[in-house]
Amino acid sequence: MTTTDTAHPLEAMLPPGSVIVDPDVLEAHRRDRATFCPSGTPSVLVRARSTGDVAATLRWAHENRVPVVPQGARSGLSGAANASDGCVLLSLDRMDRIVQVDAAEQVAVVQPGVINGVLAAAVAEQGLFYPPDPGSRGISTIGGNVATNAGGMCCVKYGVTGDFVRGLEVVLADGRVMRTGRRTAKGVAGYDLTSLMVGSEGTLGVITEITVALRSASARPLTAVAFFPAIADACRTVAGYLGEGYRPSVLEFMDRPTVDAVSRIADLGFPSDMGSMLIAQSDSGESARADLEAFERVARGFGASDVVVADDPAEGEMLMQARRLVGDAHEHLGSQLIDDVCVPRRHLVDLVEGLHRLAEQYRVQVLCAGHAGDGNMHPVVVFDAEDPDETVRAEQAFDAIMALGLELGGTITGEHGVGHLKRHWLGRELDPAALWAQRAIKRTLDPRGILNPGRVLPPE
Amino acid sequence: MTTTDTAHPLEAMLPPGSVIVDPDVLEAHRRDRATFCPSGTPSVLVRARSTGDVAATLRWAHENRVPVVPQGARSGLSGAANASDGCVLLSLDRMDRIVQVDAAEQVAVVQPGVINGVLAAAVAEQGLFYPPDPGSRGISTIGGNVATNAGGMCCVKYGVTGDFVRGLEVVLADGRVMRTGRRTAKGVAGYDLTSLMVGSEGTLGVITEITVALRSASARPLTAVAFFPAIADACRTVAGYLGEGYRPSVLEFMDRPTVDAVSRIADLGFPSDMGSMLIAQSDSGESARADLEAFERVARGFGASDVVVADDPAEGEMLMQARRLVGDAHEHLGSQLIDDVCVPRRHLVDLVEGLHRLAEQYRVQVLCAGHAGDGNMHPVVVFDAEDPDETVRAEQAFDAIMALGLELGGTITGEHGVGHLKRHWLGRELDPAALWAQRAIKRTLDPRGILNPGRVLPPE
Repeated sequence: MTTTDTAHPLEAMLPPGSVIVDPDVLEAHRRDRATFCPSGTPSVLVRARSTGDVAATLRWAHENRVPVVPQGARSGLSGAANASDGCVLLSLDRMDRIVQVDAAEQVAVVQPGVINGVLAAAVAEQGLFYPPDPGSRGISTIGGNVATNAGGMCCVKYGVTGDFVRGLEVVLADGRVMRTGRRTAKGVAGYDLTSLMVGSEGTLGVITEITVALRSASARPLTAVAFFPAIADACRTVAGYLGEGYRPSVLEFMDRPTVDAVSRIADLGFPSDMGSMLIAQSDSGESARADLEAFERVARGFGASDVVVADDPAEGEMLMQARRLVGDAHEHLGSQLIDDVCVPRRHLVDLVEGLHRLAEQYRVQVLCAGHAGDGNMHPVVVFDAEDPDETVRAEQAFDAIMALGLELGGTITGEHGVGHLKRHWLGRELDPAALWAQRAIKRTLDPRGILNPGRVLPPE
Repeated sequence: MTTTDTAHPLEAMLPPGSVIVDPDVLEAHRRDRATFCPSGTPSVLVRARSTGDVAATLRWAHENRVPVVPQGARSGLSGAANASDGCVLLSLDRMDRIVQVDAAEQVAVVQPGVINGVLAAAVAEQGLFYPPDPGSRGISTIGGNVATNAGGMCCVKYGVTGDFVRGLEVVLADGRVMRTGRRTAKGVAGYDLTSLMVGSEGTLGVITEITVALRSASARPLTAVAFFPAIADACRTVAGYLGEGYRPSVLEFMDRPTVDAVSRIADLGFPSDMGSMLIAQSDSGESARADLEAFERVARGFGASDVVVADDPAEGEMLMQARRLVGDAHEHLGSQLIDDVCVPRRHLVDLVEGLHRLAEQYRVQVLCAGHAGDGNMHPVVVFDAEDPDETVRAEQAFDAIMALGLELGGTITGEHGVGHLKRHWLGRELDPAALWAQRAIKRTLDPRGILNPGRVLPPE
C-alpha cells in the first residue's frame, strides 16, 4: 500500500470526488473545537455520500489496519474528531438528507450530516418539535449529536439526544452494515445496541442513518430571569424550585463574570451588581405563568434581588440570547478549558463554592455557566496560553474540577463526551469491572482497533 | 463436585438458609408465567440476600460452568426465568429493600426484589411518581422489570422502564461487581452499559441494585371511554388523536371478545353491542378536560357510538379496572398464547384486520387488547390444549401474528421480551450483522455461557 499526494487506494473504491489528499484540505479538517487536544496528520479525507461509501472505506481500513476518525461538523469539545497520524478522516457531512418526516407517527429519519437546527426547523414546519438543542445546534450535525449523546438547554424537561433515538443504521468496523432498534414507540427484541452506539464517539461503529422520535410542538415558552447577590442562592433556588416538583423547559445558570463577559459583546441591560443569575422557561401553556410565579417566589425566598418575568415570548427570546452567547463571550477572554461536570442538584452550591476555592488555589480565572436544572455545569478555566506556568496551573485546575465533580457524586462529563480530553479520567469514574467491560466491548466490535483509536477509553 | 438432596457446595459459601435443594421448593420455582416454554430441572435454588451472595454464586457457577437462571417474581411471560436442567435458580426476591428515596433529587435506589407497586406506593407518600406500570405491577419486581425493560399503560406518555433507569449495580458472569451509569440527571462517561443491561433478561449479568429516576406526582387523571361499532374505527381514533399532538397518560384498546370476557368476571355495565372500546386518560391537570373533549371529538368523528367522560377520578378508576382485568379474563377462556407485537400507529388497523384473517385461517380464537397509543398490542390466541391439532394451529397463529407485526414495520416484542418463547424469531427481526453483534457481546460478557443460556439469542 502506498499513499501519495496524487493517488490513494480508496479512490478506486469510491465515487469521484470523495477521496481528498490535498494537504490544505486535510489541514483544515484536522481538529474539532476542543482545546489542548493533540491532533495528528491524516493520510486522506473521505467525504462519504452513502452508506456504501462508508462501508467500502471501513472494509479497506479494516483490511489494512488503518485508523478511521469519523467527523461531522467538528464542533465537538473533547477532541473525539481530531485526526490521528495516518488516519482516514471519514466525513459524514455530505450525508445530509432528511430522509423522511412522518408527522402521523412523530418520527423522522435522517442521515448523520443533517444539521440539528435544520432538522428542528423542518419538523417545526409540520407542527412538530425535535427537543435536543445543544449550544452548537446551528452548526452541529445529528450524527455528531448522537455520537456524543449531546445535551442542551431543553434537557431539564425533555431529556438528551439519546432519549430521542429509536434506531440506527451503523457500519461496523469491518464494513458490515447493521440496523439497531426500531421505528415503533416500544421494542425489546434483543440487546439495546442503539443505546450502546449513542455516545460511543465513533469508537464502536459509524452511524449512517438515525431514526428519531419527535414531539408535538409545545406552547411558546414564557421566560423569567432572576438576579442574586450571591452565587450560592441561585444554586439553592434551582434545587428548591425543582424539589417542589416544577418542570421548567429551561433552567440555566450564569455567574457574574460570565454575565460581564456576555455584556461585553452584547448590551443586555442586566444589573451590574449581581452575583449570578438564573433563566427559567416554562412551555406548559396555560400553567406557564403560574410556573414562573412559583419560580419568582422560590427565587425571592432564597434572596433574589430581582426577578423579571418576560411579558411576551420575544422578550423571553432576548433573555435566552444572553445564554446562547456564553460560548462566544468566554472565547473573547483568552484561552479556555471547558469543563462539563454534572452533579446532584443539591450539590450545585458545593460545586460553585469549590470552583471559587480552586480558582484561588491555582491562580486562574474560573467562570461558570450551565444547565443548572440538570446539575450539569460548564466551569471554564480562562488563562494566558503564552504563559507556560499559568497553562500548567490551568490544566491542574481543569483536572481538579473533575475531581470535585466526582467527590460530589457526579460525573466528569454530562454532555460533551470523553473524547481525548478526559480519557484518563474515565478510569477514575468507572470501577475496574466496568472499565473491563467497556474495553471488552470495544475489542469485540472493533477487534483491530481501527475506529477512532485512543478516544474514550484510557490507554491500558 | 457432587450434588445431593442434603448438601450443595454453595452451602459452604453462602449464609445459612440461602441454599435450597428441597425438590418441592425447586419444583415450585421452575417456571415463570409463559405458556408453552420448556422448563428443566434445577439443581439448587439460591435465595440471595446481598450482592455478595450473588457474586459468590456466580463465581462458583463460572468456575464450575453451571448455568444460572436469575429469578424475581417469575411473573414474566416469555420463559426467561424458567429453569434449565442442572441450573442454579438465583432468586433475588429477598433483596427487597428500598435503599433510599431522595425526594429532592427525584431519585430512588432499590434492590432488585422490590415489588413495583411497593416502590410506587413508597414514593407516592413523598409526592413522587414512579411511572412504569406493567400489568404485573402488584407482583412483579423492579429487577425483573429492568431485566425485561417492562412497559405498561403509562408508557404512551412517560416511556418504559429503561427510560427511568439511571444506573445499576451488576454482577458479571465471573462474579465481579460493576456499577454502570450515574445518579445525576445526565452523564456520558463511557459506553452506556446501563441500557445494555436493561432488557437483557439475565443473559449478560445479574442486576443487584437499581437507581431510578422519579417524577413529581401528576394531577389525578380524568378518564374517558369510547365505544365503537367497528374495531378499525377505534384504531383510526388512536392514530388520529395522537396525530393531532395530544399526549394522553393512557390510551388502551380492548376488542369485543375481550370486553365480553372481562364482563364475565366483573359487571362493568358496558353496552353489549360494541365492536371495540378505547380508554383514554389525561393527567395534565387544568387541560385534562379539554384533552378528553378532543378525544371525544376525534372518536365520534371516526364513528364512536358512545363516548363517556368520567365525572370524577373514582369513576375513571373503575374504567381502568376493566382494563386491568384483561389478563385474568383471558385466562378464564382456556389455554392461551399471548403475543406482544408493536407496530406503527397507522398500522393498528392493518394489525387488527390481519388478526381477524389469521383467526379464520387457523381456526382459533384471537382476542386483542393492548397499549394502542404505543401501537403495542397483545393479541391472545385462545385454544383447547387438550386438542393436539388445535394446539398446533394455535402455535402457527401465534407465529403468524409476529410475522404480521414485522410485515407492518413493527417488532415481535414491545415489552414482554424474547426469553425462550421468541428466540427463534429474533433472527427474523434482526439483520445478520446485528445478530452477530448481539452474540459477540454475549460471548464477551459471559464467555462460558452460564448466564441464562438459551434465552434471548437463537441457537447458532
